[in-house]
Amino acid sequence: MCDHLKKLFQSCPVPKDGLMNVHLIAHTHDDVGWLKTVDQYYYGDRNSIQQVGVQYIIDSVVAELPKDPSRRFIYVETAYFRQWWDKQNQETREKVEALVESGQLEFISGGWAMHDEAVTHYQSIIDQFTWGFKILDDMFNTSCVRPKIGWQIDPFGHARETASIMAMMGFDGLFFARLDQADKNNRFDKKELELVWKASANHGAASYMFTSANHDFYYPPSGFCFDVLCFDEPIIDDLYSPDYNVDRRVDSFISYIEKQSAFMKTNNILVTMGTDFSYQQASYWYNNLDRLIKYTNERQAEGGQLNLMYSTPSCYLKAVHDAGQEWTSKEDDFFPYSSDDYSYWTGYFTSRPTLKFMERKGNNFLQVCKQLSVLADLREEKWEDLASLREAMGIMQHHDAITGTEKQHVAEDYALRLHRSMEHCRQTAENALNKLTVKEGSAEVQFHSCLFTNVSQCDTSEQAEKFVVTLYNPLAQVTSMFVRLPVQDFQYQVRNELGDLIDTQMLKIPTPVQNMPGRESSATQELVFQAENLPALGFKSYRVEKLNTASPPPQPSEELVIANDVIEVTFDADLKRLSSVKDIAADKTYAVSQDFQYYEAVEGDNLGADRRASGAYIFRPVNNQKIPVSGSPPIIETYSGELVSEIHQVWNEWVSSVTRIYKGVNHVELEWTVGPIPIDDDTGKEVINLVSLSGWETNGKFYTDSNGREILERNRDLRPTWDFDPSFEPVAGNYYPITTSISIRNHAANSQNEEFVIITDRAQGGSSIENGTLEVMLHRRLLFDDDKGVGEPLNEIAFGEGLVARGKQILLFGQTEAHPTSIYKTRRLVRDSMVLAPWLFVTPTDLTPTQWGEQYNTLYTGLRKEVPPNVNLLTLEPWNGEGMLVRVEHFLEKNDDPELSQPINVPLMGLIDRINEEMAIGETILGANQWLSDNVRLEFKIEGEESASQQLPRPDPNEDLANLTLNPMQIRTFIVQTRSSATMAAPCFILLLALAILRINI
Amino acid sequence: MCDHLKKLFQSCPVPKDGLMNVHLIAHTHDDVGWLKTVDQYYYGDRNSIQQVGVQYIIDSVVAELPKDPSRRFIYVETAYFRQWWDKQNQETREKVEALVESGQLEFISGGWAMHDEAVTHYQSIIDQFTWGFKILDDMFNTSCVRPKIGWQIDPFGHARETASIMAMMGFDGLFFARLDQADKNNRFDKKELELVWKASANHGAASYMFTSANHDFYYPPSGFCFDVLCFDEPIIDDLYSPDYNVDRRVDSFISYIEKQSAFMKTNNILVTMGTDFSYQQASYWYNNLDRLIKYTNERQAEGGQLNLMYSTPSCYLKAVHDAGQEWTSKEDDFFPYSSDDYSYWTGYFTSRPTLKFMERKGNNFLQVCKQLSVLADLREEKWEDLASLREAMGIMQHHDAITGTEKQHVAEDYALRLHRSMEHCRQTAENALNKLTVKEGSAEVQFHSCLFTNVSQCDTSEQAEKFVVTLYNPLAQVTSMFVRLPVQDFQYQVRNELGDLIDTQMLKIPTPVQNMPGRESSATQELVFQAENLPALGFKSYRVEKLNTASPPPQPSEELVIANDVIEVTFDADLKRLSSVKDIAADKTYAVSQDFQYYEAVEGDNLGADRRASGAYIFRPVNNQKIPVSGSPPIIETYSGELVSEIHQVWNEWVSSVTRIYKGVNHVELEWTVGPIPIDDDTGKEVINLVSLSGWETNGKFYTDSNGREILERNRDLRPTWDFDPSFEPVAGNYYPITTSISIRNHAANSQNEEFVIITDRAQGGSSIENGTLEVMLHRRLLFDDDKGVGEPLNEIAFGEGLVARGKQILLFGQTEAHPTSIYKTRRLVRDSMVLAPWLFVTPTDLTPTQWGEQYNTLYTGLRKEVPPNVNLLTLEPWNGEGMLVRVEHFLEKNDDPELSQPINVPLMGLIDRINEEMAIGETILGANQWLSDNVRLEFKIEGEESASQQLPRPDPNEDLANLTLNPMQIRTFIVQTRSSATMAAPCFILLLALAILRINI
Repeated sequence: MCDHLKKLFQSCPVPKDGLMNVHLIAHTHDDVGWLKTVDQYYYGDRNSIQQVGVQYIIDSVVAELPKDPSRRFIYVETAYFRQWWDKQNQETREKVEALVESGQLEFISGGWAMHDEAVTHYQSIIDQFTWGFKILDDMFNTSCVRPKIGWQIDPFGHARETASIMAMMGFDGLFFARLDQADKNNRFDKKELELVWKASANHGAASYMFTSANHDFYYPPSGFCFDVLCFDEPIIDDLYSPDYNVDRRVDSFISYIEKQSAFMKTNNILVTMGTDFSYQQASYWYNNLDRLIKYTNERQAEGGQLNLMYSTPSCYLKAVHDAGQEWTSKEDDFFPYSSDDYSYWTGYFTSRPTLKFMERKGNNFLQVCKQLSVLADLREEKWEDLASLREAMGIMQHHDAITGTEKQHVAEDYALRLHRSMEHCRQTAENALNKLTVKEGSAEVQFHSCLFTNVSQCDTSEQAEKFVVTLYNPLAQVTSMFVRLPVQDFQYQVRNELGDLIDTQMLKIPTPVQNMPGRESSATQELVFQAENLPALGFKSYRVEKLNTASPPPQPSEELVIANDVIEVTFDADLKRLSSVKDIAADKTYAVSQDFQYYEAVEGDNLGADRRASGAYIFRPVNNQKIPVSGSPPIIETYSGELVSEIHQVWNEWVSSVTRIYKGVNHVELEWTVGPIPIDDDTGKEVINLVSLSGWETNGKFYTDSNGREILERNRDLRPTWDFDPSFEPVAGNYYPITTSISIRNHAANSQNEEFVIITDRAQGGSSIENGTLEVMLHRRLLFDDDKGVGEPLNEIAFGEGLVARGKQILLFGQTEAHPTSIYKTRRLVRDSMVLAPWLFVTPTDLTPTQWGEQYNTLYTGLRKEVPPNVNLLTLEPWNGEGMLVRVEHFLEKNDDPELSQPINVPLMGLIDRINEEMAIGETILGANQWLSDNVRLEFKIEGEESASQQLPRPDPNEDLANLTLNPMQIRTFIVQTRSSATMAAPCFILLLALAILRINI
Repeated sequence: MCDHLKKLFQSCPVPKDGLMNVHLIAHTHDDVGWLKTVDQYYYGDRNSIQQVGVQYIIDSVVAELPKDPSRRFIYVETAYFRQWWDKQNQETREKVEALVESGQLEFISGGWAMHDEAVTHYQSIIDQFTWGFKILDDMFNTSCVRPKIGWQIDPFGHARETASIMAMMGFDGLFFARLDQADKNNRFDKKELELVWKASANHGAASYMFTSANHDFYYPPSGFCFDVLCFDEPIIDDLYSPDYNVDRRVDSFISYIEKQSAFMKTNNILVTMGTDFSYQQASYWYNNLDRLIKYTNERQAEGGQLNLMYSTPSCYLKAVHDAGQEWTSKEDDFFPYSSDDYSYWTGYFTSRPTLKFMERKGNNFLQVCKQLSVLADLREEKWEDLASLREAMGIMQHHDAITGTEKQHVAEDYALRLHRSMEHCRQTAENALNKLTVKEGSAEVQFHSCLFTNVSQCDTSEQAEKFVVTLYNPLAQVTSMFVRLPVQDFQYQVRNELGDLIDTQMLKIPTPVQNMPGRESSATQELVFQAENLPALGFKSYRVEKLNTASPPPQPSEELVIANDVIEVTFDADLKRLSSVKDIAADKTYAVSQDFQYYEAVEGDNLGADRRASGAYIFRPVNNQKIPVSGSPPIIETYSGELVSEIHQVWNEWVSSVTRIYKGVNHVELEWTVGPIPIDDDTGKEVINLVSLSGWETNGKFYTDSNGREILERNRDLRPTWDFDPSFEPVAGNYYPITTSISIRNHAANSQNEEFVIITDRAQGGSSIENGTLEVMLHRRLLFDDDKGVGEPLNEIAFGEGLVARGKQILLFGQTEAHPTSIYKTRRLVRDSMVLAPWLFVTPTDLTPTQWGEQYNTLYTGLRKEVPPNVNLLTLEPWNGEGMLVRVEHFLEKNDDPELSQPINVPLMGLIDRINEEMAIGETILGANQWLSDNVRLEFKIEGEESASQQLPRPDPNEDLANLTLNPMQIRTFIVQTRSSATMAAPCFILLLALAILRINI
C-alpha cells in the first residue's frame, strides 16, 4: 500500500509540549520567469539582471540534504524540477528518490508553476496542477510524491476558487502571504492569521480549506537570510574567532520568535527560511540553520522556551491539527490585495492584455489538441505532441506570466514559447485530423491554423483560391458559430459539409484595424458565414472558393439602428453612441450607454506610500477621475446584413470599436481596438470600457467570477470581514479580477431581476464605481515602475509603436431568476463559446467539392452519447500511453437555475468509443494523482459550528458508469486505462489501480 | 608503498596526439583575508563587502566532484581547508579522502596561505608550508597528499628564493601570473611564458624550477566564467529553448584557444577555470564545463583541433614534460611587478609598516616557543600550545596580509589574531620556562612578555619594584644584547645570573616617543644594561631592583660626536646631520650623510594608466621628486654614556630619530619615528630614509636579499632579460623589496671593496636612485585607492590620528672580500640578531637575589654541542607527539667568504639531549612531508645546456649524524621520533619511516 500520508507524518519532527515549536521551512521561491526568462533563470543566464540559476539551486539542495537526516526542504515548481531531473544521471536520481522517500525533500503545491489566482481560468489551473503532479509521479517511480499543501506565498491576492480546487485535489491546507495589509493587521491582533476558508458555495465542508497567512511574506526573519545573495551575518561558533557571535545571534532570533509567537493560537510557529531563488548555495543556509537550531535548543537546558526544528508545511499543519484548536472561518476571497493604503495590486488584472488573450487561446487550442489526440487515438510518443503546449500553458499560469508583471523581454519569451508550442499542437491536431478525415487511399493534407484572425489576418484564407475550413468543436454539446475570414476583394462561395451552398456576407475590416502596426495583411474585407450545428467533440468541413467577380468593400450607411429577429440595438443620434438594447422576445428595452474612458496614471518615485506610481502591478489613477477618450462623438459607419449587422465607431486616433449582432443571437458583441495609447503628454493612461444602465439601482453591488467558476458578490467600499477605508484609493481599491464575467443586477423594486453581464475574452480588471455602471479595464500604458520588483514601466512597444490591443466583450442582458431564459445558463454558454470556441483549420485544396467529399470525411463527432446541456467535458486527454484522463463538470451553481441546477446524470461509459467495458476506469481526486477513495484530508474545527465531514465525497462503488451523478459545480475525474497497460503506470499507481480494477470488476 | 607520484600521474587525463590539449583547471583563489577578515571569508560574513563564504565553496565542490569521475579540482589554501575539515563528519571526510585518492581533488602549493614573495622571510615561508603540509597529512590518513606544484597565481611579483624553497620541497613546477607586463609581452612573442628558472646561485640544477606564466592571470577566458557571482552566459543545450546557444558559445571558446595556442611550445595549454572565491556554487561551473567539453570535443569528428579535458597543473606539467621540449632559462627574479607603464607594485613593499614589524616579531617569538617546547619536552596537547601562533603566522604570510594590501579592518583583525596567538605562545613559553627554571619545591612563576618595548612601554618593568628579566636566546650560538627597559625616574640596580651587580645606564626616551598617540606609559627613561654571553638555545636571568633614589632624566649635551672603542660617529655642525662614521679598528672613515625625505603621492582616478594613483599596492611619486621632511636642521640632543651613546634628532613635528652606538659594537643603529604623516595639504606622502656615501662609485648597482636569504644584484634602469623603459616611472620602477638588507658597493678603483649595508627590522622597499645612495621607504600615508581591488586609500588611523611607526635600521660599513672582518658574516649575524633576537620575559618577584638563585635556575642552555658560527638552527619544534622537527642551515653563500663559505660539519645527534640514539631520525625534503630519498622531481631540458641532475642531493646512508655536512646555503631537514611513536605517524609516513629506521639501523 502506498501510504504516503502516514509515512509523511511519521517522518515529521516531533513538537515538544510546553515549548514553542519553531518549524523552520527551508524553501526557495523560484519564479517561472519574471525578470529573466524561464531558461535564463534555469541556466543562470543574464545574471547581471539577477544572479540566479535554478539548476544550481536544486543541485545544491540535493547535495546538502543527505548530510543530516533532520534537514528538510520543500520544492514547489515542477517545471523547474522536471527540467533539472531530465539532466541527471541514475545515481543522482536515486539519491533524490531516497530524499523524497525519507520525507527530507517534499514537493508541495506541485503545479507546473505557482499560478496566479486573479487572472487564471480554472481549466488551466487544474491542467497545470495535473501536469505537475503527473510529472512528479513519472519522475519518482519508487515513491509517492503527492503534494498535499497549497503554497501560494507570492501571488498577489487569493481566489476562493483556487482554494476550492485545492480542496478537490485533496490538499490539507493552504499557505499564503499576500493579503490586504489592513486585513492582515486585523488578523494579527485577533490571532486569526490562521482560519478555515469556506471555499465554495456549493461543495459544503468538503471544500473547507485550512488557511495560514505567513507573518512576513516568505522571507526569513530579518537578519537571518543565509544565502550567497544575502548579506546577513552568519553564525560563527569558533570560540577562537574574533568574530564569534553565537550568543548575540541566538538572542536576536529568540527575541523575534517570542514577538511573533504572541500571534499564534497553538504552540507551533512556521518560519520561512528562504526567499526568491534562495538556496543557490544550500550549504550557506544549512550550515547556519544547523547552528541556529543547535545553539537555540541548547538554551532549553537553562529554561529556553523555543524548540527549533527543520520542518515542512505538512508537518507544521499536522502539529497544528493535532493541537485540536478551533478556528474562525470566512466565505469571501482575498481580493484585492493592497500592500499599503495607496498600493492596490489591481493593475495587473489587465496588464499586458494581448498576452492574456494569447494565453486564453492557448488553452482553447490545448483542449482541442488533447481531445483530438484521444479521438484519433494518437499514442503519445514525443514531447512535442502535447506536452509542449501543456507545459507552455503551465508556465503561462505563473504569477508573473499571465499577470503581465514580468519584464518586456520575458513577456516576449512567454509569447514565443506559447507560439512555438501551439505550432507543435497544430501538428498534433493535423495528425489527428488526417486520421479522422482521410478516407482510405486518399492523401494526407495540411491543416493550417489561423492564429491572427483576432486582427483579421489569415494567410491561407487570403491567398488560397479554394480551401476547406474545418471547424472542430471541443464542447460536449452541439454549437454554432459565425466564421469570419479575411479575404481578397472578391466574391466567395461557401459550401457546407453536404456540398450545399450557404449564405455568406462580406464585411469591411474597420480602417483602424487595417492599419494596425504589425498587421501583415492587405485584406480589407472579411467573409462571414454561419457554421451551424457543429457536432459535439467533432467537426464539420466547409469549402470556400473564390469567384472571379470582384467585390468592392461594402458601403456603410449612417443608420443608428441595427436589428435582427431577436435583438435591436439603437445608437444616439447626437452622441453617436449606444443608447438602448431591446430584447425582442422578452419585449424588454434596456437604456444603456457605452463609452471608452481612461484614467491618468499616477507618476511616482515610490519613496513613500503616497508617492506610489501606477505600474504593472498597481493601479493608481490620478484623482480617481475618468476622462472620455474623445470629447466629440465618434465617427460611425453602419453595415447591416443578413448574417451580421455592425456599427463601426472611430473614437479617436487610438480607440475604435465595432458593435455587432449576429443573426439569431440575442446579445451584443463589442469589439474594441485600443492603442497605441499616446504618451506624448508624458502621462500614462489606463483605458476602460464604461457601460451604464440608466435607472438601475445596483446599491454598490456587482458580481465577478472566481477563476471563471463560482460567482462572488462584491460590495463597493466594503470588505466582509474587516473595516475597509476606501478613502485612499476609492477606484483602485474597488477593482476586482474578472476572469470571464462581471455583472450588475437591478435591485429596484420593479426590476424583474434584470441582470447585465459583460463577458470578456481574457482576464481583465473591473468594477462598478457608480451605481448602474460597469467598467472594465482594457489596456494600460505606463511610464513609471511601481517598485514591486519588475523594475520597468509597463510601456509595451510592438512594431516600433505602443502596443495595440483588440478584443471582444459580450454584453448580455437577461433575468436572474426567469426560467427558462435564465441568464445563468446563457452566460455559461456564452463564456464557454469563447473559452472553448470551435477551432478553425484551413486547408488549401484544388479538389472539387465532390472530390473532397469522396476523399475526406466532412462531418465527425467523437461523442457517442448525448451530454446534458449543463455539463462540460472539462478534460479529455491521453494519459499513460493508451489511457485517457476524463473530467466531467456540472457547470451551474446550486441556486443558479431551478431546473438546470439540479444534480444531473451524465454518461461516462460509452461517452466516446474508447471508454468501454474493455477499459479499467477509476475515479481520482481532481489532480488525478490519487484514487478518490483513498484520499483522507485533515479536518479542522470551526468555532461555534457542528463538525461536518471535510472529506471529499466518496464514490459509490455501485455507481453506474454509464450514468454518473453530478451535483452543481461538481467536477469528477476519471482515469481510463486499458487493463493490460494498467501495470505500466507508475508504481505508486499500480497497486491502487489493481485494487481499482478489482473494485470495478466486482 | 606510498606511490603518490605514480598514482597521481596515472589518474591524469591522456592528451591526444595531433590535437591541442586544453587542460581546464577548475580552481578557486581564496585569499586568506583581504577585503574581509579570514573568518568573514570563511563563514560568509559581511557579504555586502564581498559575497563570499569559503566554507560553502568547499561544501559545494565536494558535492559536485563525485558526479563525474573526470571532474577535477585543485585546492591551495590549507588554512581554509583545515577550518572546513574540522567541521565535517566522518562520512564527508571519507568522501573527500576518496576524491583525493582518485586524483579528482588535488592539493597544490598546500601552504597555510598563498604567501607573498616580496616581504616575507624564508623562515616563515618554510614554516607556513610545513604546517600546511603537516595538516594535510594529518587530515588524510589513507592517502598521500603531498603538493608538488607551486601555485602562486596572485602574488605581486616572484622571488627567486621562493622558487628555490619550492625546489627544496621537491616541487616539480611553479605556476604564476603576475610578471612585468613588458616582460610578459616579450615572452608571449618568444614563446617563453614557460621557462626553467635557475633559482639559486648555490644549489645548482637541484634548484631549477620549471616555471609557467599564465596567459590571463588565473581567470577564465573572457565570457566563460560560470559562477554565481559571474555574469557570463551559460551554455544552453536544450534544443527547444529559445536561448539555445551551444554553437555560438563553442565557436567563441575555440577562437580564444586557437589564439592562445600560438604562444605555446607544446600541444598542451593550461586554461584556468576559476577566479577569486569561485566555485561558491560549483555546479554552475561543472555543469557548464561539462557541456563545453562535450560539445567542443564533438567537433573533433568534423576536424576540430581541440581536445578539452578536466586536468590539474600536475597533469598539465606531466604532459608538457613528456613532450620532451627544450626551454630557455633565467637567473634573476621577477621583481618589481608592473601591470602597466605607470603601475609598479612597489608600494606594498612598505605598506603598513607596523603590521610588517609585528609579523617579524611573531616569527621571532614563534621560534622561541617552539624551541622552548622541545627543550622543556612539552608534549603537544592543545591547539593553543603552538598551533595558534603557527597558524596566525601562516595567515600573516598571505599575499594580502603582510603586504599591507588588505582593508583597514582586516589589518586590525590580523593584528588581533597575531596578538592573541602570541599570548598563547607566551603561555607555552611560561610553561616551558617554569619546567626549566623552577627547582624542586619552588613555586611556579609568571613570565610576562613586553610586546611594546618598541614604543618604550612595558607595564611590568614600569610598575614592579623588583623583577627578574629572563632572556632566551634562540640562536645556536652564544650572543649578547643590550636590554632597554622603560622604567620610573628612579635609580635601578641590575644583577646578573651570578648575583653580581652589572653596569647600567639611564637614557631619556625621546620626547616624540613619549608623546606617541596610543602609548600607555608615563615612563620617560629607559634602563639599559648589557646581557653578555647569552647561551645558545638557552637563557640567563637578570634581577632588577628599583632603588629609593630618584633619577631625573639625563641632560643632553650639544656634542656632535659620539664614540666608543670601535666606532666614532660625527654629525655636521651646521646641518646637525650625520656626516661621517669611522671604523676605528679598520681605521677607515666613511663620509656619510643621512636624511629623511618624502615623495608626494600621485593622486589619480585610475581611469587610464597615466591616471594611476599611488596606493596600497602601487608606488607612484609625483615628478619622482624627493622632498626633505624639514627645510631646517633638526634639533639635536646628545647623550653619551658607557653602554650607549645617542644623538636624538627631531626633524619636524612628525619625524624624529635616534642615532646610537653600543659599547663594543661597530655599527650604527638608527631608530626612526615617523608619523602621523600630515595630510592637511591633501597630499599623500611616502617617507624614506636616504643615506649617501660621499664619493662612492656604485655604477647603478645595489644589492637586496631574496626573502632574507641569497643576495641579488640590482641594476638601476636595467632588467637582465628584456629591454626595460625606465622613463615612465624612474623611481618606482627601480624599487625592490628588502626583506632584511640592502647594500651598495664602492666600485671605485681605490675602494678596497667597501660595502655599505642597511639592515632593516621589517620588510621595506628600497633602491639606489642616485649613485652612492641608498633609500629605504619607511612609511606611507595615502589619500587615494590605486584600483587594484582593496578599494581603500592606505590612510592608516590609530588612536584617532594618522599612524605613527617606529623602527630600527642598522647601518653597517665593511669590506666584501676582506677576511676575517668580512661583512658577509657580520651582516648575517646582525640580521639574525634582529630576526631571532633574544626574547625578553619579565617576572615580578619579592625574592632576594639569593633566594631567587636558590629556587630558580638563572642560566640554562639546551645545546649540548657547539654549532659552528655559520650555521643556523633554523627549526627546532615538537613534531608528532614526542618527536621533533629539526632544520640546520649553512647561512653563507658559496662566494661570500673564503673560509666560512666552505662546507661545514654540524652535529645533529646529541645536539640537544633528546636527539639521541634512542630516537629514529630520518631526513626529509624541506617541507618535512616526504623522505628525501624518496623524492623524484620531473626534469626539464634547458636549451643549449648539458643535462645535469635536477634531483635533490641524496643523503649518504652512511653519513654520521653527529657530523652532518652542510654546503653553503644548504638547509637539511630531519624528523626525530621515538621509535615507539613512529607507528603513530600518519600512514603515509609509517611505511617510509619504518624503512628509514631500518636504514638508519643498518
